[in-house]
Amino acid sequence: MHENFEPYYAVIFTSVRTNEDAELYAATAQRMMELAKQQEGFLGEESARNEIGITISYWKDLKSIKNWKQNAEHLLAQQKGRDSFYKYYKTRICKVEREYSFEK
Amino acid sequence: MHENFEPYYAVIFTSVRTNEDAELYAATAQRMMELAKQQEGFLGEESARNEIGITISYWKDLKSIKNWKQNAEHLLAQQKGRDSFYKYYKTRICKVEREYSFEK
Repeated sequence: MHENFEPYYAVIFTSVRTNEDAELYAATAQRMMELAKQQEGFLGEESARNEIGITISYWKDLKSIKNWKQNAEHLLAQQKGRDSFYKYYKTRICKVEREYSFEK
Repeated sequence: MHENFEPYYAVIFTSVRTNEDAELYAATAQRMMELAKQQEGFLGEESARNEIGITISYWKDLKSIKNWKQNAEHLLAQQKGRDSFYKYYKTRICKVEREYSFEK
């Protein structure tokens, strides 16, 4: 079932928004998603928000994640996140060791 | 910054619902969350749903995850998930290697 599975990485970003800057937040989130997609090693992204927001991005390796974290435009967005967008966030760097899926 | 960090595990469950059994789905999801909390090795859970649903549960080790996967009541819920609740799902077993957080 899991032959030839090559581990990759997931960055789990969970957050609680402030009530500030709703439009700028939406535009910035959209822009960061577009920018992430252009990065070397980016594999995909999944996102949902109710009381908390969960965004998971998938990456080929730790180096890709480090490069993305240090991207200049992303650094500005991260700063804006701490200054205004978020009450709370937590970032977890994870190695995906196994996976299985179901489709109807 | 990351001294004494002890790796733990995350189970990322992403899904797309069918339109079937909305009430039973809500009750089952609620019950599974309560049941998961009672399991040995359970550390926490985060969940959000828009177009896709993302539920992440956190666990002490792989053994805890395996036990939870094989829990009898959970097995019935998983079967119901394939029969009716979900069009699609994917489960990823991940080792959390690093984390950092921000709080205002």
